[in-house]
Amino acid sequence: MQDKQTIGFIGTGMLGAPMAENLLADGFRLRIYNRDRQKCAPLLKAGAQAVEQPWEVAETSGLVLSCVADDPALEAVVGPEGELARRLGSGGVHVSMSTILPRTAARLARQQTDFNGYYVAAPVMGRPDAVRARKQTYFVAGPAEGKARALPLLERLGARVFDFGPDPAQANVAKLGANFLIAAAIESMAEAAAFVEKNGGDAQTLMTALTQTSFACPIYQNYGRQILEGTFSPPLFKLPLGLKDIRLIKTTAAEAAAPMRFAEVLESRFLAALAHGRAEQDWTAIAAEVRAEAGLD
Amino acid sequence: MQDKQTIGFIGTGMLGAPMAENLLADGFRLRIYNRDRQKCAPLLKAGAQAVEQPWEVAETSGLVLSCVADDPALEAVVGPEGELARRLGSGGVHVSMSTILPRTAARLARQQTDFNGYYVAAPVMGRPDAVRARKQTYFVAGPAEGKARALPLLERLGARVFDFGPDPAQANVAKLGANFLIAAAIESMAEAAAFVEKNGGDAQTLMTALTQTSFACPIYQNYGRQILEGTFSPPLFKLPLGLKDIRLIKTTAAEAAAPMRFAEVLESRFLAALAHGRAEQDWTAIAAEVRAEAGLD
Amino acid sequence: MQDKQTIGFIGTGMLGAPMAENLLADGFRLRIYNRDRQKCAPLLKAGAQAVEQPWEVAETSGLVLSCVADDPALEAVVGPEGELARRLGSGGVHVSMSTILPRTAARLARQQTDFNGYYVAAPVMGRPDAVRARKQTYFVAGPAEGKARALPLLERLGARVFDFGPDPAQANVAKLGANFLIAAAIESMAEAAAFVEKNGGDAQTLMTALTQTSFACPIYQNYGRQILEGTFSPPLFKLPLGLKDIRLIKTTAAEAAAPMRFAEVLESRFLAALAHGRAEQDWTAIAAEVRAEAGLD
Amino acid sequence: MQDKQTIGFIGTGMLGAPMAENLLADGFRLRIYNRDRQKCAPLLKAGAQAVEQPWEVAETSGLVLSCVADDPALEAVVGPEGELARRLGSGGVHVSMSTILPRTAARLARQQTDFNGYYVAAPVMGRPDAVRARKQTYFVAGPAEGKARALPLLERLGARVFDFGPDPAQANVAKLGANFLIAAAIESMAEAAAFVEKNGGDAQTLMTALTQTSFACPIYQNYGRQILEGTFSPPLFKLPLGLKDIRLIKTTAAEAAAPMRFAEVLESRFLAALAHGRAEQDWTAIAAEVRAEAGLD
Repeated sequence: MQDKQTIGFIGTGMLGAPMAENLLADGFRLRIYNRDRQKCAPLLKAGAQAVEQPWEVAETSGLVLSCVADDPALEAVVGPEGELARRLGSGGVHVSMSTILPRTAARLARQQTDFNGYYVAAPVMGRPDAVRARKQTYFVAGPAEGKARALPLLERLGARVFDFGPDPAQANVAKLGANFLIAAAIESMAEAAAFVEKNGGDAQTLMTALTQTSFACPIYQNYGRQILEGTFSPPLFKLPLGLKDIRLIKTTAAEAAAPMRFAEVLESRFLAALAHGRAEQDWTAIAAEVRAEAGLD
Repeated sequence: MQDKQTIGFIGTGMLGAPMAENLLADGFRLRIYNRDRQKCAPLLKAGAQAVEQPWEVAETSGLVLSCVADDPALEAVVGPEGELARRLGSGGVHVSMSTILPRTAARLARQQTDFNGYYVAAPVMGRPDAVRARKQTYFVAGPAEGKARALPLLERLGARVFDFGPDPAQANVAKLGANFLIAAAIESMAEAAAFVEKNGGDAQTLMTALTQTSFACPIYQNYGRQILEGTFSPPLFKLPLGLKDIRLIKTTAAEAAAPMRFAEVLESRFLAALAHGRAEQDWTAIAAEVRAEAGLD
Repeated sequence: MQDKQTIGFIGTGMLGAPMAENLLADGFRLRIYNRDRQKCAPLLKAGAQAVEQPWEVAETSGLVLSCVADDPALEAVVGPEGELARRLGSGGVHVSMSTILPRTAARLARQQTDFNGYYVAAPVMGRPDAVRARKQTYFVAGPAEGKARALPLLERLGARVFDFGPDPAQANVAKLGANFLIAAAIESMAEAAAFVEKNGGDAQTLMTALTQTSFACPIYQNYGRQILEGTFSPPLFKLPLGLKDIRLIKTTAAEAAAPMRFAEVLESRFLAALAHGRAEQDWTAIAAEVRAEAGLD
Repeated sequence: MQDKQTIGFIGTGMLGAPMAENLLADGFRLRIYNRDRQKCAPLLKAGAQAVEQPWEVAETSGLVLSCVADDPALEAVVGPEGELARRLGSGGVHVSMSTILPRTAARLARQQTDFNGYYVAAPVMGRPDAVRARKQTYFVAGPAEGKARALPLLERLGARVFDFGPDPAQANVAKLGANFLIAAAIESMAEAAAFVEKNGGDAQTLMTALTQTSFACPIYQNYGRQILEGTFSPPLFKLPLGLKDIRLIKTTAAEAAAPMRFAEVLESRFLAALAHGRAEQDWTAIAAEVRAEAGLD
């Protein structure tokens, strides 16, 4: 267990905020940073301390958790000259929970190694309500020394931690694979539902049957419900973030010469959703695109 | 409960045989028919009686179960002039467990109505070992009178029965939707696994993580294992039958003007598998196609 | 050259009518049949003779041209018991200009052989205005004796005749290949135009440049103009006929285990167009679907 | 007409070299640069002068043509601090003939404006033999002053010049659209040929017929021949460059929220070709992938 040291926390958005709150509730002291300062307010009330520059959350040999939207956001908070890594210094640990390109993870890991610190990739899998209830999963990868300090914290914060070995990039590869599987499941269910409805049937009965039997798992149960209900606002995970993930997957796949045909379909589906003004909806709103393509609604 | 009447059973293949065996074990008398007579032998030893023509399994007002490979096979066993429906006559019930076109179901239902009988669609969902262990699921639809006689038998034979209403075709629509979801899950897992592997990672760890958490359900657990092990022979469900299902889905979708983009990808995937000589493999062998497309192996 | 014998002509629709008119203008006598009798009227005025049943256009050892919408229409006009082939009898020739399944062509060819007649497949390529101006192309295949009688007539009717050998089905295979290429070119141009427009450019300049250089050919020039003008009514070739062709291609490809990924995209594109109420528009209206998918209009 | 001033020329590869040779033949003096120095040798023999750094080809208010492989290569030769633009200075013109991202063009144009110079985008369309024979096409866009100096040279170098207006990025948008259309035509022809061959027909006859009629244009004639001959080495345009273009198209389309389904198919096709070791072949080798997918060869 960590003794209740001060932890740096960068990114207090939909996923970061509930994690930070849970840490405060557990008695940790937090130095926090968020691009949009307003999102820090509730945490400041709960005892966190705000800083001006993102890397100021760090102290030498300390521990920093970050959870931001995308690669550019992460690159901004680590600083143009590696300020975060420099400040964490020897023995410092950056636990990076964002869903980013594996090669960005690899680059930041090298940067931290230059300062004798440890970069631990720990992308988080779970929606805001799950994170609040400490039910999320972490895919963790990085050097053993870094993981030794990160794991107790992650196990406290979430329900499950899976270890993807010493290379940080591999946690991000796995996370992109997982997000691809979720997006593919959403498209699959949406197509199946439209197929049934266009043939005069009741998609609800089908999904009820399947989610009690062969597909009795959270993704099909939770996303299935959302798809059939057709409520895509307010978003739990914004559609442009889903598109961002699909593009990270496509980029990473392309660099490795891995053709992914379902990912291609997903890319054009998300682009169409964006073109049709769904930028503020949940990423499950691609199901509305499937319905519209089929002339339903 | 049925009193142990004599039941007609047409189609004693990979799914039909274990169902017929379980009925015999429960004390039912069976008249059986299979196109390939040799597959009847074990059942004859167990007490079943064989007939020459498929419709001879029927008796007036009796009950016939059928479980055959495809639409033409079913059309053959009901007889070119509706012999099965005629012989079942008034009050007779045909419980049709095959995965066929909804419009074939609709046509056979009308035929049976002409003779005052009942056609109950009850496509079965489960692989041979599950059927033997009475763990399969039935999607049932048809007239109430027919279902009243079919349900006790189906509930004895399998684990779950879901009712899709009075129109037999709807059970087949739902079954095609379900099979589409399974095929889409296979392709999805295969693409995710190839993605991870081409990026130097370990797909096994990813699938272990996911099938304990968000994807903790039989389809992802069982098919996931098969895909990662890469053993596609002997087949549990032959690849050409998978292609047949995809084509039934595509045909039914086209007639209802329902575009299905994942189903399109699946169609060309199965066709390529066939073109590459995988006709004797399990349908999960499309995962081997995904690997080959990515230059793995 | 044919001496001006009486010719049977079945199917006087958008393509058949101008061909029949041209034959009458050349001094041929015609016995004509069309499912919708009203479409015969102008030809009757021009001197053609109408018959009651389609096969009544034929006389022993005579010549019949047919040009109908699809496989079922052709199967109807040859008669349920091969009436047309029987009536044409020994030495009779059926020149079948419809775009149909190669296997339908093969079946009708066998039927005609049974009566010692000749089935010549001669699918026509060209739009109504081109046909009227005798600029269309024929893809011809069949037995030499049949082609010897068909060719002089086809060469008179159109601009170009290409010989695909002795097997009638091969002309239909080639015709489906050609129609696939046209549909693919339409989708390609529509995607390129939407791409340019969404990026703030002018698709007209691009198409002007290309159709004067690398793509200086009728398909890109004519369809390109139609796509950019966005006028899809009245139709020159109805969208459901385009979908029919795509489905013939897909069916023929599937039976030969030939995956065709562009054809898949086209299938869902046409289905969406149909689902969106474009059944009365020209098949180039899939370009409107491409625009709508991109959020244009 | 230009008086025979000294021109800077960067990039003397497969397309650049024949252009530079033709300029020398016309009496222009050239200062040249190529990353791989060896490729300069023939031009040096023909009278060109080599420089050490790419921007040293420029002189104040001078004219520089560049033709390099991709965005990073262009970014390298303009210099990390805008050295090329600085050296060209007030009134200098950079005619950039590479196929690059529209947004890279926009950025370089702004850079040049900062030095009161002109950036003219003039991507070239044509294969090496066409360029040598001065048959290529240029898509030109940029400020009027820049075009006034670039056009006489481009008209001398190639056969056709099309003007896409004052915004340089639009020439690149158009060029990407054009390359997409070519790649789509290659895939289309490959699919059609495989379709015919798998159905026992002769793709050569089909292509002969079409390239004399509806598809009588260079792309279908030249690429069609190459596809049917199946000779993909030596490359005229290397497959990885084709993939690069597809990815530029996809990136540009994604940023504008323009779904492009054919481009998606092309991306996975090129990736598979790369995964199968075709990096040294011509980009038409995707046709070999289509054949392999269909089980041909």
